Amino acid sequence: MVEQRDRHPTPEGQRPPIHIYDTTLRDGAQREGLALSIEDKLRIARRLDALGVPFIEGGWPGANPKDVQFFWQLKETPLTQASITAFCSTRRPGKVAAEEPMLQPVLAAGTEWITLFGKSWDLHVTTGLQTTLAENLAMIDDTIRYFRSQGRRIIYDAEHWFDGYKANPDYALETLEAAVNAGAEWLALCDTNGGTLPHEVGAIVTAVHTWLQQFPEPRPQLGIHTHNDSGTAVANAMAAVEAGATMVQGTINGYGERCGNANLCTLIPNLQIKLGYPCIAPARLETLAETSRFISEVVNLAPDDHAPYVGRSAFAHKGGIHVSAVEREPKTYEHIDPATVGNSRRIVVSDQAGLSNVLVKARSFGLELDRHNPASRQLLTRLKALEHEGYQFEAAEASFELLMREALGDRPRFFDLKGFYINCQHQGNGDDHSSQSLATIKVMVGEEEILAAAEGNGPVAALDTALRKALLTFYPAIANFHLSDYKVRIIDSGAGTAAKTRVLVESSNGAQRWTTLGVSTNIIEASYQAVTEGLEYGLMMETARPHCAIGGEIDRFDADMALQKTRETALAKLKQELGFE
Amino acid sequence: MVEQRDRHPTPEGQRPPIHIYDTTLRDGAQREGLALSIEDKLRIARRLDALGVPFIEGGWPGANPKDVQFFWQLKETPLTQASITAFCSTRRPGKVAAEEPMLQPVLAAGTEWITLFGKSWDLHVTTGLQTTLAENLAMIDDTIRYFRSQGRRIIYDAEHWFDGYKANPDYALETLEAAVNAGAEWLALCDTNGGTLPHEVGAIVTAVHTWLQQFPEPRPQLGIHTHNDSGTAVANAMAAVEAGATMVQGTINGYGERCGNANLCTLIPNLQIKLGYPCIAPARLETLAETSRFISEVVNLAPDDHAPYVGRSAFAHKGGIHVSAVEREPKTYEHIDPATVGNSRRIVVSDQAGLSNVLVKARSFGLELDRHNPASRQLLTRLKALEHEGYQFEAAEASFELLMREALGDRPRFFDLKGFYINCQHQGNGDDHSSQSLATIKVMVGEEEILAAAEGNGPVAALDTALRKALLTFYPAIANFHLSDYKVRIIDSGAGTAAKTRVLVESSNGAQRWTTLGVSTNIIEASYQAVTEGLEYGLMMETARPHCAIGGEIDRFDADMALQKTRETALAKLKQELGFE
Repeated sequence: MVEQRDRHPTPEGQRPPIHIYDTTLRDGAQREGLALSIEDKLRIARRLDALGVPFIEGGWPGANPKDVQFFWQLKETPLTQASITAFCSTRRPGKVAAEEPMLQPVLAAGTEWITLFGKSWDLHVTTGLQTTLAENLAMIDDTIRYFRSQGRRIIYDAEHWFDGYKANPDYALETLEAAVNAGAEWLALCDTNGGTLPHEVGAIVTAVHTWLQQFPEPRPQLGIHTHNDSGTAVANAMAAVEAGATMVQGTINGYGERCGNANLCTLIPNLQIKLGYPCIAPARLETLAETSRFISEVVNLAPDDHAPYVGRSAFAHKGGIHVSAVEREPKTYEHIDPATVGNSRRIVVSDQAGLSNVLVKARSFGLELDRHNPASRQLLTRLKALEHEGYQFEAAEASFELLMREALGDRPRFFDLKGFYINCQHQGNGDDHSSQSLATIKVMVGEEEILAAAEGNGPVAALDTALRKALLTFYPAIANFHLSDYKVRIIDSGAGTAAKTRVLVESSNGAQRWTTLGVSTNIIEASYQAVTEGLEYGLMMETARPHCAIGGEIDRFDADMALQKTRETALAKLKQELGFE
Repeated sequence: MVEQRDRHPTPEGQRPPIHIYDTTLRDGAQREGLALSIEDKLRIARRLDALGVPFIEGGWPGANPKDVQFFWQLKETPLTQASITAFCSTRRPGKVAAEEPMLQPVLAAGTEWITLFGKSWDLHVTTGLQTTLAENLAMIDDTIRYFRSQGRRIIYDAEHWFDGYKANPDYALETLEAAVNAGAEWLALCDTNGGTLPHEVGAIVTAVHTWLQQFPEPRPQLGIHTHNDSGTAVANAMAAVEAGATMVQGTINGYGERCGNANLCTLIPNLQIKLGYPCIAPARLETLAETSRFISEVVNLAPDDHAPYVGRSAFAHKGGIHVSAVEREPKTYEHIDPATVGNSRRIVVSDQAGLSNVLVKARSFGLELDRHNPASRQLLTRLKALEHEGYQFEAAEASFELLMREALGDRPRFFDLKGFYINCQHQGNGDDHSSQSLATIKVMVGEEEILAAAEGNGPVAALDTALRKALLTFYPAIANFHLSDYKVRIIDSGAGTAAKTRVLVESSNGAQRWTTLGVSTNIIEASYQAVTEGLEYGLMMETARPHCAIGGEIDRFDADMALQKTRETALAKLKQELGFE
């Protein structure tokens, strides 16, 4: 492969641009557990457009009513820059393309580009389609010519290309030849089963690239479409590019059937930053992490924290020596500057934390804690004690900030818990049972004592409701707070039901989200801690910034930015008060 | 790389065996959010041993008390086959290895093999360690010679190898030369920052492999240690193997710092099935999917359903035509036979009833249910309703067996719950609080009504204790039962504290372990379901086999095997009674 890099006709440093082809909306949506509404599809398409992806595969018009409607809506308010493509298969055996009803909704979608897939593997033609090899060539030819006659441009997806080429290279090339002669502008070689390895992709794409030179200019360019069944979707796509492919098909976050498609959030930076192939404008590349997270929000799948480049942990550092080295010289422990893909360095506070970790972490909250400040030592001691008890602040930055403020004597007290009382009753057995949970809570706000009670689906929900009820008259902002996520983990699961429970609660005020933590052998107490800290943090932000009642749905990243800003302002004030800097 | 495949001296079809080196317990544990108890580490080590991995990196003795204890425990009950290695760094600059306190706990761990890491990158030596290039060479030499003088064998991990080699190849090779001359038997080239791409790994490993030939036999062999920051950890490791490396370092499920390490669950099948390098015995390869899931349960991270080879969706098929094609000719849509890695084909049923799914599931429990048996339909209906409510039986086979027995009218009733009542009180705030949980339970055993009450650390523990108390006089065997694991997962975390909770409880009678399940919006009810089914299943086994009171700690695999045997016996009896077969 090293040698292959020099095959491109363009000189070193001027590699040809790679056309990114996104199929999140079609192949990505094949992922088990992923279901997209039309609204979801439109939001994703606009976001991909903003990212600067030139091709967006929108779906198969006619395969389901949703896709038809999606293309109609896009015709009314078109994308600014990207070409949207309609996906479909060749006509059926023994039919005529011009009379094939299946192709009509595809034309009706009104796209300039149509992505047509056809069979490359003789086995699929004979056992899958149950037709002859010659008829398959006619299907490719006829369908492309028909679409061309209607003024459309064609990307030809050669399905099962690599398996087909390995089984019968001559026939596989005949299918491509049919596509070339009928007027396809792109030939995308698909590793549909995802079983091919990089060295095979490199060799086969090289062979096709060479074969293609026999056709007169302007000849079609090659594309690559890979799946991750061997864990090498990204490496396969890169091997194809090194062998001459100039279009890369993939999905955001690698969504897709089975093990997923090639992850564009990995491929784009690999190609552009590391190999020097221009893909998208550098300023747009800086929105990559944001785009990845936005799309995971829209499809309602937890973001992969460990995803290359864009994951929350991709530039996270643990361990004392390591952390101080990163501070001194980032490239010693970071393969790229995280800012180029819109991500950022994170210092993880863990049980390996030394004082330097805590100081660096504090700095990320805008607090220049001094190594010799007694508050720093106090914070470290407290942190170590809490971590010993099972607290982990990695995912609970709001709780960590409250802890820092406490060490600095600046944690506001909005309310004080006097106690709570929970009562669960369960009658009967199996399907034939009834149950009831009741919570009573007593809190002090200033000098006032409030007693509130509430019922709920379970003890934690009842307690949460009672607490809000108690505080609402004093802090009306609480009406806008809600829990957007609730996670429970058993820390020492070997201890059975006496095990410690770690609860993470994500709260939201509609504009911002923050995460708090609770730990206890009693799940109700752990939940209570996390829920109250969530309310406390929300109230703290309310007081630190002008009240803004933002309703409706808000972009997560705008929200994160806003939270960051609020934090910076609040902490700048805090620093000033405490005399830091 | 295609060409490189032919460089190995062994003839085609007889590729050299690859030594798998697992670092789940050390580098894997660096993953953010992953915390292992000693018990977890022991369970994982034994499972890796059973998988047939020859090297298991256990941790850094002395870096924390947990690792010291882990090695002690392994000395008492050693692994059957794998070599456990102790990990540590070279001595500090300006010291003498023999007098370096840091190295003593490493020797005390008593392992035959020590994995020593040292610096390869001049920048790390000068800015990280802040010493001279010569002193770094002395540190490598001195530390290896000292360990060798104590009779230990050395795997030398060349940290930041690829960045170091690119920056200053001559110096990087000098560090390896120091390791070779001091007696290292393996040189593992580490892509510590994970930024290197496959073509670079291939080229650099080839260069090192050639360079290494200057040393007389027996010369050290090469290893490769990759990270996934460019999404190419697996491809990088394969490129290194194709270039002459014969040891591959990685982790189960790709756990590891930042974006993780090379995923052994992908690499082993790629190397063994696709490239023909023997790694582990084929029969052990068939336990790979199980091993992956077992370890994700132990570390309490949701398994990655989309992981290559071992993920739940890796061989999942959607859509009618596709499914019938797979049925006719699996290789048209599957890159390998899923059984070779212990996985199975899944037909994803969207809305249509999957009677065949249920029959296949039942078969996996040894029950040949007939398609026309009304019990099959009843089981299917019940199963669908439960799955809709959030039940997942994959990890709760005991609950699934109870369900099957219920459908077959063969579920014994040891007790009936009339109801329970739970009371939690919490007084005060923060560190200065007290709390109390009390459970009262009413159960019927035959005609007798028993009322029992108990206190506990939390509501679930109180309920568990009360239930045992109520049943103990009737079923003394319960005294031997204990909960060996307790896991909580939120199903629909977006629903906040009203989300549904799935509880998995693993019970043990000292000889066997079995897992049961409960689901409810109320965590106490979900726990109650899982705990009672656990007792029920244990009692059922007691009546189905001669009583054997085995105390002490038992190997999980022996226990699994024993459980399997008990199940087979019980189900053979059941089948006979029901007239199956």
